[in-house]
Amino acid sequence: MGSSHETLDAYLVVGIEAAKQAGQVILSNFYKSKTVEHKGTVDLVTETDKACEDLIFQHLQKTYPKHKFIGEETAAVLGTSELTDAPTWIVDPLDGTTNFVHRYPFVCVSIGLTVGKLPMVGVVYNPILNELFTTIKGRGAYLNGERITVSQQDQIVKALLATEIGTKRDKKTVDATTNRLNHLLFKVRSLRLSGSCALNLCGVACGRLDLFYELGFGGPWDIAAGVLMVQEAGGSVFDPSGEHFDLMSQRIAASNAFLKQDLVDALRTADA
Amino acid sequence: MGSSHETLDAYLVVGIEAAKQAGQVILSNFYKSKTVEHKGTVDLVTETDKACEDLIFQHLQKTYPKHKFIGEETAAVLGTSELTDAPTWIVDPLDGTTNFVHRYPFVCVSIGLTVGKLPMVGVVYNPILNELFTTIKGRGAYLNGERITVSQQDQIVKALLATEIGTKRDKKTVDATTNRLNHLLFKVRSLRLSGSCALNLCGVACGRLDLFYELGFGGPWDIAAGVLMVQEAGGSVFDPSGEHFDLMSQRIAASNAFLKQDLVDALRTADA
Repeated sequence: MGSSHETLDAYLVVGIEAAKQAGQVILSNFYKSKTVEHKGTVDLVTETDKACEDLIFQHLQKTYPKHKFIGEETAAVLGTSELTDAPTWIVDPLDGTTNFVHRYPFVCVSIGLTVGKLPMVGVVYNPILNELFTTIKGRGAYLNGERITVSQQDQIVKALLATEIGTKRDKKTVDATTNRLNHLLFKVRSLRLSGSCALNLCGVACGRLDLFYELGFGGPWDIAAGVLMVQEAGGSVFDPSGEHFDLMSQRIAASNAFLKQDLVDALRTADA
Repeated sequence: MGSSHETLDAYLVVGIEAAKQAGQVILSNFYKSKTVEHKGTVDLVTETDKACEDLIFQHLQKTYPKHKFIGEETAAVLGTSELTDAPTWIVDPLDGTTNFVHRYPFVCVSIGLTVGKLPMVGVVYNPILNELFTTIKGRGAYLNGERITVSQQDQIVKALLATEIGTKRDKKTVDATTNRLNHLLFKVRSLRLSGSCALNLCGVACGRLDLFYELGFGGPWDIAAGVLMVQEAGGSVFDPSGEHFDLMSQRIAASNAFLKQDLVDALRTADA
């Protein structure tokens, strides 16, 4: 129940509809000046963020009234959301909020569906670049309808690595962040910071990036869709320690099929 | 001679033609697997890079046989190019070569023209995102034909900063780079690394970014067009020390109209 071939197809269709509706709202507001509230020092919430989450939840709930929902904005109001075995839509209505405020074109809607706590369907949509990433468990990952795969790079010295510096600005966190970057710069070809966790995962999935890690991002809504995207494109998702990945842990790393152990080793050395 | 209103218009038209021709070559090869040569540890040159420079120079030379030319690929062969008072086209046929190799969508053609060593015309074209930035001295900066201006942000704590980590990987350079990032992370909202110097300058010009600095990039071809773009959009271009900017120095910083001194102070503290 809830995860047959045809059912997953239907979930993906409805997820895409919701993402495209929200994407239109993001696109129509992208070039306007923004009204911003603060959550913490450098995190931002915009009116668009909230409007998109309402729109997505209404669309999903209309079709699947018995499903559960975890969303970034709702979680911020209700406190931490618990993930159960029920079909659960995990939604970031606008990943890359800082980019959205600054009109930097890496923003997206991220919609993932878990059944039995496992990601089964994922949709990530960047309405500015018109890139729609989609995936169903066991059936591959796609960008605008074309099959995507992770890169074939097997030397970390030639790898392009993405990370984010996050929103925390206490000295301990910032020192650990830049110390990690210092170590990694001796290992990889170059470094990209795009400002969207979900798009970084899609970047690994389609081979634009070879490696990605982030510690202390917002929550499962940033990664629920992207995790499946990487796995279905032939890559690995894991805890930065190399241990088993936990969707609720706010720690993630991703690689193509060859470079997982190199990244884990590099991060371990950096944090030693 | 060489810088009247009508003459500059004509230069811009020919510069755009050259950029669009090269852009088509970049676009048509963007999704193909790349043949790569190495220059140094992490710098890359592709066949497309060379083909685009030939194409641009041929187009410019056909129309302006007496003009001088400085190009990234040509300079690599001939050694350092000297800038004279003659009308001189300064060309990066493919800025963001690492991005091109990895199919990361921040790549561009950058074409600047100096007369009397001063930038007078600039064209930066990203064929993947179809963004054409253009400028003429004294007459504003444009993105796809629409006037652009720098951001209005006057608090550095809310500023989005771009930089690049460059291609040098000796311990002294990498330590200085990450030390600088460490200091700046306590000052600004967030950090972006896109992999294209010219597009970072255009990002400041159109207000997506508030601040940018880079030390030790390739040469004047990375910035000749972008410098004028920032200035004509109302921003400042300066040496990271706060002193007068030198096109040939491989050191640059750019800001909107408000945040120059804050960036200079932050960089000075970091390097103290």
